[in-house]
Amino acid sequence: MSERLRQQIEFLREIDDLKQILRQTVLIKDKRQENDAEHSWHLAMLVMVLSEYSNDSSIDLLRTLKMVLIHDIVEIDAGDTFCYDDQGREGKVEREREAAHRIFSILPNEMAQEYIDFWEEFEAMETPEARFAASVDRLQPLILNIYSEGYAWKKHGIKKSQVIERNHHIAKGSTALWEFAQNLINEAVDRGYLLDA
Amino acid sequence: MSERLRQQIEFLREIDDLKQILRQTVLIKDKRQENDAEHSWHLAMLVMVLSEYSNDSSIDLLRTLKMVLIHDIVEIDAGDTFCYDDQGREGKVEREREAAHRIFSILPNEMAQEYIDFWEEFEAMETPEARFAASVDRLQPLILNIYSEGYAWKKHGIKKSQVIERNHHIAKGSTALWEFAQNLINEAVDRGYLLDA
Repeated sequence: MSERLRQQIEFLREIDDLKQILRQTVLIKDKRQENDAEHSWHLAMLVMVLSEYSNDSSIDLLRTLKMVLIHDIVEIDAGDTFCYDDQGREGKVEREREAAHRIFSILPNEMAQEYIDFWEEFEAMETPEARFAASVDRLQPLILNIYSEGYAWKKHGIKKSQVIERNHHIAKGSTALWEFAQNLINEAVDRGYLLDA
Repeated sequence: MSERLRQQIEFLREIDDLKQILRQTVLIKDKRQENDAEHSWHLAMLVMVLSEYSNDSSIDLLRTLKMVLIHDIVEIDAGDTFCYDDQGREGKVEREREAAHRIFSILPNEMAQEYIDFWEEFEAMETPEARFAASVDRLQPLILNIYSEGYAWKKHGIKKSQVIERNHHIAKGSTALWEFAQNLINEAVDRGYLLDA
């Protein structure tokens, strides 16, 4: 086996651990906590199915898919931070950048750099692909939350204003999906899944 | 909300259930059974990292990624069949085809047809993308099996000859990865993870 293939396989072995990083969101039927690998797969499906709603019509689907598939790998080291946990978000970028360098550097050099660049691009939310990837990254938990009858929101006593504050950047990637998301949020309040405050 | 978006969101809600379809393979560290959504994510990562080893150098990465991301969705209805379960494989194609039509038809018509066609293409293993997708679909459980010290193989008393028989089509997508897989299989026998028969 070549040294190159050995590095690639070692990376693919390492990232198996993403399946053990739990999020606060729960599955619609099971109500068990979702993990990062499942979440990343679901995001890739959102990208495939919903890309027509991107504000930028020339979005590169392959680049967007790669971005959502790798974006949470840093959480193997850095852990998942609940998006409504303001304290937990302190120092998050530094922890995650360190993780990106450790984990992606298991790969051959030029691949490592490509993946670190993808992760940085996702975090910066400046390119059309990164903006759309960020939109689906926020829309997916909204969908799980509303169809699980606000399970995670109720557990943590989340307010509508917090959800708006943390998710309004969906509009930067897709005004159509943000319009849809706002309807979901209002429906969630009506049904008592979310505090009207 | 448009009827089109309603159908797309309904599909994205439906496929959340893929996270509940368990496979026989276990995670490397946790030793709990892997589910289909995690498996699909891991396959997408194998496609990204290992595509250079495809026998066909002009493989379309986007098409291959789409194929591995959707290939197991049929198992929401049809269930997972352990690849060494010869009885379970009887009638599998019919069950899965019925599932493909029910689940993908939740999507708007032309999208439904596109996804059914992708699934049929994956199953037929005739295009370069489908052959490479099938290769990583067999290589990924081999990797999990060897690094989990043959957990699933030992549990089911699997023999080397069965593993060769069920996985040799890796070579159709990638002779380099089949060479690597054969080394893994021999190592597994040496370590007592797999019966030498």
